[in-house]
Amino acid sequence: MEFRSSMESYPAPPLSVSEWLNTDKPLILEELLGRVVVIEAFQMLCPGCVSHGLPQAQRIARLFSRDQVTVIGLHTVFEHHEAQGSRAALKAFAHEYNIRFPLGIDKQGGYLPVTMSAYDMQGTPTLVIIDKQGNLRFQGIGQVEDLMVGKVIGGLLAESAKPAPKPDSDKVGCSDGVCLAARHPST
Amino acid sequence: MEFRSSMESYPAPPLSVSEWLNTDKPLILEELLGRVVVIEAFQMLCPGCVSHGLPQAQRIARLFSRDQVTVIGLHTVFEHHEAQGSRAALKAFAHEYNIRFPLGIDKQGGYLPVTMSAYDMQGTPTLVIIDKQGNLRFQGIGQVEDLMVGKVIGGLLAESAKPAPKPDSDKVGCSDGVCLAARHPST
Amino acid sequence: MEFRSSMESYPAPPLSVSEWLNTDKPLILEELLGRVVVIEAFQMLCPGCVSHGLPQAQRIARLFSRDQVTVIGLHTVFEHHEAQGSRAALKAFAHEYNIRFPLGIDKQGGYLPVTMSAYDMQGTPTLVIIDKQGNLRFQGIGQVEDLMVGKVIGGLLAESAKPAPKPDSDKVGCSDGVCLAARHPST
Amino acid sequence: MEFRSSMESYPAPPLSVSEWLNTDKPLILEELLGRVVVIEAFQMLCPGCVSHGLPQAQRIARLFSRDQVTVIGLHTVFEHHEAQGSRAALKAFAHEYNIRFPLGIDKQGGYLPVTMSAYDMQGTPTLVIIDKQGNLRFQGIGQVEDLMVGKVIGGLLAESAKPAPKPDSDKVGCSDGVCLAARHPST
Repeated sequence: MEFRSSMESYPAPPLSVSEWLNTDKPLILEELLGRVVVIEAFQMLCPGCVSHGLPQAQRIARLFSRDQVTVIGLHTVFEHHEAQGSRAALKAFAHEYNIRFPLGIDKQGGYLPVTMSAYDMQGTPTLVIIDKQGNLRFQGIGQVEDLMVGKVIGGLLAESAKPAPKPDSDKVGCSDGVCLAARHPST
Repeated sequence: MEFRSSMESYPAPPLSVSEWLNTDKPLILEELLGRVVVIEAFQMLCPGCVSHGLPQAQRIARLFSRDQVTVIGLHTVFEHHEAQGSRAALKAFAHEYNIRFPLGIDKQGGYLPVTMSAYDMQGTPTLVIIDKQGNLRFQGIGQVEDLMVGKVIGGLLAESAKPAPKPDSDKVGCSDGVCLAARHPST
Repeated sequence: MEFRSSMESYPAPPLSVSEWLNTDKPLILEELLGRVVVIEAFQMLCPGCVSHGLPQAQRIARLFSRDQVTVIGLHTVFEHHEAQGSRAALKAFAHEYNIRFPLGIDKQGGYLPVTMSAYDMQGTPTLVIIDKQGNLRFQGIGQVEDLMVGKVIGGLLAESAKPAPKPDSDKVGCSDGVCLAARHPST
Repeated sequence: MEFRSSMESYPAPPLSVSEWLNTDKPLILEELLGRVVVIEAFQMLCPGCVSHGLPQAQRIARLFSRDQVTVIGLHTVFEHHEAQGSRAALKAFAHEYNIRFPLGIDKQGGYLPVTMSAYDMQGTPTLVIIDKQGNLRFQGIGQVEDLMVGKVIGGLLAESAKPAPKPDSDKVGCSDGVCLAARHPST
């Protein structure tokens, strides 16, 4: 498990999705401002995603009302494209695992899928949490504890929809176990 | 599992403790103002306490810094007094289960222990969460999900240490899965 | 969970497999006489297979020496053929889940795969245990307890490689939780 | 986890029990000849006993008929005597954890309880399995897998009630993961 740390708040990169399941229309982060957004990046053949990441995302979707927290699954296929890359495969998977929240297939484009690259994800499962302002506030790979996820979401829900105060510039690294990475937009 | 619902915020009753373990001096709620306080009410011979409640309290104590969240175990013995009622028994139990946070033995006095009665607890394990103002904000019996606990604590940490706004009087019952009971002090 | 009951011992039907993975040559039940054979019938998109059936098969393969107990995975695809029907998909799955024992793809042919039909399996996961004589001695769908599986295998290992004694004709149904179905060869 | 290995079969030492619960009369190994006997040595304040050993013993008692397999809990108190040493404490514990099989309190006598010493147990939980002849055939400390336990019991049930053949003297150590210790009676 690894968490990002950051001295500054910065806007979450847009989602680059080639196809959507479980939703009538594409989800766009700008349209979700005012809500906390949880993105579960997964691959259907990733054991940790099946045993931990996706069940956690389902618990999040069940506990919080959709008006307050929007859960999105992002299928970031970066290996075994033949086996798990098709819409049909993902649809069968979502059916069998009873996944009801919107699923986006991360756009292929280069070595890694486009959104996965933009967020600088290192693998799957990766959990991303975005605040009401559209800022990336948490990103963790592997098994993130429910208690931690609940704490982050609970804290973000308590924030007003207006911009969060800038962190002090002398406040470096992690606090309370929640950290955000110093990041530079990939150029 | 059952959660309290409440239309109003009200002060958490004081702790009536006959003996303390794992602490140099008694813990008093008034002295903890400014912190979130988590009370895990348990009995050492209660299976759900051993398998769920106490491990959860240990996870809370591990995740949050003690300056922000104080975890207290409250030994509310209401049966098998001969077997689990002594300080020696609790001390041996705490040693074997590696419980490091402060433990208070709820004062015997009547049919149920005094603190247990004051909080109107129906059994064990019961999880209580108190805000920085000293108000009871969450009480749940049985298995409360980590995600929920994290959410409540995260939300309370985001509150300022000043009094929370009074809930609207027309806002009845539960919201977002978190509820507080309409309560009347036991007379 | 459901177990078969039987008054009589009868030969396990042959395996009809279109392709094999994790083995140099096809496995044939006749050539495995003298060993106990465990068949785990599964589908890669079946949640119960991923969470219970296959991990159990891996534990069996790890505990028992291969000279005594041969574990075979049988991919009985009866739905989502497009997603999970290809050799490439199964190979990727076996790689990600680190499955080392031989895997056979059940031959398609009719409504259900051929071997699945011959064993009259009702779904996945199904666990089949065959004795040293090549007789079907246990078949269970769903979650079969490890304790039960160990008991059946331990009992079969203790049998000589010569034919087991015919059960008494007045001994009907299940005994000790292990049951075999009254079956008639599918004509 | 550690298993005993042995080149020879030898009789299980007698049980030295000061008090029994959950049974009308004391259990004596000689009177259980013809059955497989499983002894779960535990302490009520031992976390591994509560989370693993005793639930496993309960599963064994549930799966096998009592005529074939007799499960006995042995309370081998070697620490925290004040807290867990009394009959009342054990009775309360058995009630709360719903333990129905016979429980014996190992007789105090020296540094370790008498039966614990006679079996040369190194701690709790320890699982002991005795064959129909009254010979000690398996002893393991810590977490023994259900699959292994099932295998040992299944194999012993398949043996006739007559003496098992002497193992070859050149067959040293463990086989199939099941081992018995070279032992000398404690003098």
